[in-house]
Parts: sequence; structure tokens; C-alpha cells
Amino acid sequence: MPDPAPPHMPAGDFRNLAAQTAAWLTGYWERVEHLPVRSLVQPGDILRALPEHAPETGQPLPATLFDDLDRIILPGLTHWQHPSFFAYFPSNISAPAIIGDLLSAGLGVQGMSWITSPACTELEMRVLDWLGEAIGLPNAFLFRGQGGAVIDGTASEAALGMLLAAKRRALRVFPRDGQRAAAQRLTIYTSTQSHSSIIKAAMIAGLALDAEDRKQLRLIETDSNYAMRPDALADAIRADLADGLIPTFISTTLGTTSSTANDPLDAIASAVRSTGATPWLHVDAAHSGAAFICPEHRAPLRGLEHFDSFAFNPHKWLLTNFDCNCLWTRSPRDLIDAMSITPEYLRNQATDSGAVVDYRDWHIPLGRRFRSLKLWLVMRHYGLEGLRAHIREDIALTQLFESLVRADSRFEVVTPRTVNLICFRLAPRPGENPAATDARNKALLDQVNATGMLYFTHTVLPGIGGAPPRYVLRMAIGGVRTEERHVREAWTAIASAAS
Amino acid sequence: MPDPAPPHMPAGDFRNLAAQTAAWLTGYWERVEHLPVRSLVQPGDILRALPEHAPETGQPLPATLFDDLDRIILPGLTHWQHPSFFAYFPSNISAPAIIGDLLSAGLGVQGMSWITSPACTELEMRVLDWLGEAIGLPNAFLFRGQGGAVIDGTASEAALGMLLAAKRRALRVFPRDGQRAAAQRLTIYTSTQSHSSIIKAAMIAGLALDAEDRKQLRLIETDSNYAMRPDALADAIRADLADGLIPTFISTTLGTTSSTANDPLDAIASAVRSTGATPWLHVDAAHSGAAFICPEHRAPLRGLEHFDSFAFNPHKWLLTNFDCNCLWTRSPRDLIDAMSITPEYLRNQATDSGAVVDYRDWHIPLGRRFRSLKLWLVMRHYGLEGLRAHIREDIALTQLFESLVRADSRFEVVTPRTVNLICFRLAPRPGENPAATDARNKALLDQVNATGMLYFTHTVLPGIGGAPPRYVLRMAIGGVRTEERHVREAWTAIASAAS
Repeated sequence: MPDPAPPHMPAGDFRNLAAQTAAWLTGYWERVEHLPVRSLVQPGDILRALPEHAPETGQPLPATLFDDLDRIILPGLTHWQHPSFFAYFPSNISAPAIIGDLLSAGLGVQGMSWITSPACTELEMRVLDWLGEAIGLPNAFLFRGQGGAVIDGTASEAALGMLLAAKRRALRVFPRDGQRAAAQRLTIYTSTQSHSSIIKAAMIAGLALDAEDRKQLRLIETDSNYAMRPDALADAIRADLADGLIPTFISTTLGTTSSTANDPLDAIASAVRSTGATPWLHVDAAHSGAAFICPEHRAPLRGLEHFDSFAFNPHKWLLTNFDCNCLWTRSPRDLIDAMSITPEYLRNQATDSGAVVDYRDWHIPLGRRFRSLKLWLVMRHYGLEGLRAHIREDIALTQLFESLVRADSRFEVVTPRTVNLICFRLAPRPGENPAATDARNKALLDQVNATGMLYFTHTVLPGIGGAPPRYVLRMAIGGVRTEERHVREAWTAIASAAS
Repeated sequence: MPDPAPPHMPAGDFRNLAAQTAAWLTGYWERVEHLPVRSLVQPGDILRALPEHAPETGQPLPATLFDDLDRIILPGLTHWQHPSFFAYFPSNISAPAIIGDLLSAGLGVQGMSWITSPACTELEMRVLDWLGEAIGLPNAFLFRGQGGAVIDGTASEAALGMLLAAKRRALRVFPRDGQRAAAQRLTIYTSTQSHSSIIKAAMIAGLALDAEDRKQLRLIETDSNYAMRPDALADAIRADLADGLIPTFISTTLGTTSSTANDPLDAIASAVRSTGATPWLHVDAAHSGAAFICPEHRAPLRGLEHFDSFAFNPHKWLLTNFDCNCLWTRSPRDLIDAMSITPEYLRNQATDSGAVVDYRDWHIPLGRRFRSLKLWLVMRHYGLEGLRAHIREDIALTQLFESLVRADSRFEVVTPRTVNLICFRLAPRPGENPAATDARNKALLDQVNATGMLYFTHTVLPGIGGAPPRYVLRMAIGGVRTEERHVREAWTAIASAAS
């Protein structure tokens, strides 16, 4: 063998380093509260702090690792685990999920086909049945009800997969030499408030030339609560049918990104049915899906039995580290048909027999980690009761924040609270120009965020009844380390800045 | 606040559990050698060993965790880290990479935009410049040379991204109302030996109806070494140009999945140039890219300066845990144009100024982990010297295996070895029917794999000069724990089975 041997780390050193890393992390979680939530570095600062070239000679870890993390990396982080991080949506981590990821990394198996590690496939099937049942999905979405489910990286990938499955199903009825022409007639529908990933999926799938192209994509108007209007959807479908188009895919949202509005599933299903069209009906519940673990929050699911697929992210608000998007569908066959290719080097007896699930055909990537481990450990450690307690705690904190906003007449709550997000703003002064109101709110946001004490973000919501769009402040409360005092302190900071 | 509180794990318990998990993992790495490489379970065995429903009440970890791992999970694993795992391609793990993933999990930041954690973006930029330089990429592919790079999950996603960038670039020259029609005329090219993900990318992007559709996709013939034939490529392009089509994307391979053949980049670039077409030229070096860390293995890169993009997976053979695909391109702008959508809730000053990289526009997912940490730690710990030592050790072991095969007249080596894969088989007996030779090889593979002592796989390679396709055995040698004795034992097992 050639010299020198590669410097693999001895087992004992790894155990020590893992322990040191765990200790550094718990130290970080302890002190993160005292760091500015949003990074204060300027573009290029971190780049300049790092050597320009890779080291020729290695320096066995840990060496200066923890110093470098403290000195170079931490100042460049926006701390999503800070108890006063109220921006975007939460990105929960938990000890059981971290241990699950550590196991996945250390086992180092690939779950692309059943045969490449049967447990990687079958544990995923089982925990997705667990979780689907736990959030109240219809039996037809579960493996035990002849549906199926898969862990993807993100809701974006899930939506793209469902769009491709819908496309496949719609084209199948045409003779093969007519499918290309038919593909130009497929239309997809989502609301003006749905996530940007739906437009992106249309672009990737070749149904939109760019983000502005509306030839095959309809953005349906929303009502005064920013939920999709079923009547407007039905009108759009009817108009398209009249034009000889083929309504193929409808992506609804439970919990829109801007304001956590819920599209009315039951009314949407009825409206679609009334047109005679039979598009694929998808639910993107990326954030709000976590709330359905509590029976008292499941009202938005009414009508889901008429839908084809449902996705949500335990990696947002359900204590399971990113990435973990769960996608359920009653029609795995359409997804597999849209994705499947079996080259010779992946053929094997188990696959050929048809007796197993090969997850490589359920999404874009071929390789896949053992991601179900973290979901398994989270559900074992917390139990459904523990998960519900987590959601209920955050909703109670959000109600507290809402009551504080409502008690201050300078502010207004802009949309009805559905889960753990408050959309609010400084209310317009009598006779104030809408642009001036927006500017005051933007100034407030910038001023508070600049303190580093907390971090929250904004959105712009369409005006209602012909009014201009409104610049709105978003306060999302779902951090694992967020306590009542952080919410009260956040409000104090916001209220004083308003003075 | 409502009762009960969610049972978050106390910091001390997490540290203990992390230490226990690290110890269980090092124990696993120690004993994995004595487990059957390929799982022996039957479909459904693992499913049946798991409870049907999620627990209502949590059981704080570890409880029975390690017992369950030993009892339920391990028997269901095909052990990719087993020293006698020679199947597919390796899926290296290393201690520094695992620690990097542990840090990423524990920090729990999101890197979708620069502002959401500047260090997550800038460390990625820096280590990709390090690695690109270290494997000999042209400067124009690096950030410092006005190119750019990104960590994706898999080479499949990288190829899809490049196809979309190519499509965008090709359509841009048409007036907007002509782009849909033009999209029907775009053609893409790859060899018959390229990875299945290229066809899958064409299906996802709407350029192929299914895996059989060849209206916009050409599979170019290969030579007797299974490398793409530049003359056949040029012919296909010329024919398409004559038909009014638009050659848009060529995906070449360095290190094909079946036999690690290298497409001749320089000759391909010349051949394309001779046609007058200007398609996007991509290199998929998913597996073999790791070898380019050694200067003596860089000959296949000749001509890369004429290409637009290059991707490889440190998660295969370069000691960096899955997932870590690195994609470099000289034209990030085309990729961003194909992917970019900036909704209001993601707008921020840094992005609006154009001074930063927002990686969400470089791929399909929006959310992203801090994956550069593991690559950083691998390069720091091993140094370029250590990484080269790892590659050289595996190549030496592969040369050893090759010499053993060549010394046994019952066997033949089927394709020239380029890196760490030997394609070989029981040689045809005089007058033997090709199907009978295939059957003997398949029987040999099944018999050896059934022992559980080692695991290797097969492929089917096209026959040369009108000969029928051949069933070929693949021996890929790249495991971190693989030593000379494992290679010798593997050969002994194969040779005895042949008797």
C-alpha cells in the first residue's frame, strides 16, 4: 500500500470529539439568548475571515475548531434557535431529532431502493403511517389504506412531485403521439397567497416560461381573509374548459406563508366538482400541518377526503430537524409513473417482484439518507401528548402576544390568527396616506431588528375591496426556547419603538 | 401557559445521550465486519417489528433505543460501511463529516438567503472555491474567477438545475411569445452509458414524456470503452440542426455508473464546435470526481475549459457524508434566471443590493442546511494530502484486485480500469452461448452475495461490434474500513464460488 495512510480519526478520538461537540452545542443553546438574533456582519466579512485555499496538510480535529466556530461562524449566524427569533416560520430542532440525524450519519446507509437497506424504507413507511394518523389524515392517504407517503427534503420538492404526478395522470388518457400537444393545454391553479414554490414548480416542469408566465398557470384571488375563493377558482376552471384547456393540478394551502390563511378545502372540492373537471388536488400545509396533531385545530382539514395529496414539514414547527417534509398521497402510482426509471445497475429481485417500496421513484434524488430515524425518535420521546403540548404552548404564547397588540390602540391586528402567527401593524392615522403607514411600519421593523434583541419580518398583503396592498409585520411564535418573558419583552421593544 | 409542558430533553441528558450514541456508533463500526453485508430480511419484516401506531405518551430517550436499534434496525440494514461492501459506489462517511453534520443539526440555521445566516452562505462559497481548486477546475468555475458553486443534495438535482439553466439560456434569444414553440425544438444529448438521472431530468423538465421518449433527447453511442463517441454526437447535432432543432444541453460523464468510463471532453467540445451549435456543456463526475484531488488522475479533465458546468459528489468517495453534491458553473446567472422568484416575505436589503449570493435561487428547495460545515471539517482534518492518501489507497487496492482477476484464466476484465472499479466476469467458454455465460455470472454473483461475507453488484454493458449485451460483475473498492485482507478475502470467495 502507498504511504502515507489517510489520517482517519481513531474511535476514541471520535467519541471525545462528539462529546465535546455536544457540550459546545448545549453551551451555545444556553448563551444564544445573549447574542444578537440577526447577524450583524456585512457581505464578504465571513469570506475574508476564511483562508483562501484549502490546507495541504490536515490538522486533526478538534485543533482550533471550537475557537473558529466562536470567532468566525457564530458572528455570521442569524440564530434561528434564539428564543426571540420570530421571523419567517420557526425551524425547530430537538435533542431526539439531532440524535436521529447523528445515527443516520454514523450508519451511513443509502435508502434509494428497498434492497439497499430495507429498514431505511420500512421505518419510513411506518412512521409516516403513525404521523399521518396522528394529524387526522384519511386512511386512504396511509400505506395501510393503500395510499403511501415519503419524506422529501422540502415542501417545494413535494409540490413539484405532485405536479408531475398530476401531469402524468392527465396525459395518460391521450394517445402517445398526442401527449406533447396536450401538455401545452394543461393548466394549474393556486391562490395569489400560495408559496412561491408552486410557481417555481411550474417553471421547472416546463409549464411556465418564467415567474410571470400565466399561460398555463392561474393565480386565484383570495377573500378578505386571504383564503382562496372557490367561486373564483370555479370560474377560472370553467373558462379554461371552454377554451379547450385541461385543468390538471390545484395546489391549495393550509397556512399561507404570509398570514397562515387556510384555503377552504371542502368548498374548493365542491367548486371543482361543479365544473366537471378532475384535476389533482394537493394541500400544501408546510407550516400549519404541525397544528393538526391537536384535534382542536383540525377544522381546516374538512374536505381533505376529496383531495389527492397532502404535505407538511415537521422541520418547521414539529421538533424534527430540517430536512423533513412529509408527503402523503392516495395515488403513489401516479407519482412513481412520473419518476420511475430502473437502469440495469439498480435492478434486483425485490424490486422486480413488486413486493417492496423503492423510494428512489418517489422523488427527484436517487440517493437518500435514513431520515425517518429522527422522526421516529421525536415521536417516541415526546409521544403525541408531548407534541400536542409543544403546539399548545406556542399557541398560548401567540394568543398572549395578540392580546398585547389588541390592547394598544396604535396597532391593529390585520388578519385573523389561525395558529401561531400574528399579522399586525401600526394602524393608519386618520387621513394618513397608505404609503406613509407602510413607511412607519417598515421603520419600526428596521429599528427593532437593529437592536438585535429580537428578529421578526414583514410581508405585503393585497388590499381588500380595491384598497392598496399593505405592508404588514409578521410575528411567528414557535421556538423551542421561547418563553412567556421573551414574548413580553418583544412586545415591550415593539411598543416602545412605536412611541 | 397550558399544562403539561412539552418534555424537552435537559441539556445534561442530551450530552449523555450524544456520548452514548457516539459510543454505540463506534461499537457498530467495530462489529459491522461480522454482520452480513446485505440485509437478509424479507419484505415486511421490519414493518411488522414496529408498533402500528405512534405512542400517545412519550418515553424519554434513550429508554429502549439502543436495544431497538440492535434488534429491529440493524438486521434490516445493508451495511454500506462494511469493509466488504463493494456494491454500487461507496458512500463514505468520516468522523469530521459526522461532527460537521452534528454541528449543522445543533445550530439549526437556515441558509436560504444570505441574510438568514451569512456564514452558511459564505462558508459554502469558500470551501467550494477550495475544493474546485483542489480538483483542478478552471478558475472560471470558481467564485474568485466570476463563476460560482453550490452544494446540492445529489448529482440528479445538479443535472436538472443545469438542464434548466441551459433551457433558459437557449430560449432567451427568442421573443417571449415564441418561447413556448421554441421549447419544443430544444434537444439534449447524453451517452447511452450516462446516469439515469439525465433522462429523469428531461422528464421532470418536460422535455421527455417518459423514459422512452426520444423526441428531444438523444442517447449517443459509445465506443469500445463505453465512452461517448464525439463523431456520433456531432452527427446527431448536425441532423438536429438540419431539422430546425436547437441543440441545448449536453451531459457528459467522467466515470459512468456502469463502468467508470470517461467521455473525452476535449474531443467532444471540438466536435460540438464543428457543428456551429452552442449548447450548454455539463460534466457529471458524480463518483470519479473525487479522484481528481490527485494530480495524476486529472487527465480526463482535459478540455474542461470549454464546458459550462461540472458536478461531483464528495458523499461518494471523498469522505463527506451524504448528502453533498458540489456543482460548479461558469454561468451562475443562467441558473439563477431559471430558478429565481423573490416573494415579498423573503425580500431584504442585502438581496436587493445584489451584493450577496442567495442560494435559494441556485436549486429547487428553498430551505437548506449548513452542509458546508462537514466539507470544511473534512478538508481541515485530512488536508489535501490526507484526501489524496485515501484515494491512492483505494486505487492501490483496486489494482490488487485487478491483478488477482487477471491471474485467473477463468475470468476476464471487461473494461479498462479508470479508478476504483473493476468490471469483470467469468469468461465465455469456447462455443458457449452468450446467455449461458451471463447465467453463470449471475449465479456466481447470487451465490457469493448469499454468503453475506461481501456484497457486490452487476451491470449490463452493450456488446461491442454487434455482439450481444454482456452481464458484468462490478467490484467498487472505496470503503473507509476496507483493507487489503478484505479485498483478498473477497477474491478468494469469488474464485472458490467459480470452482
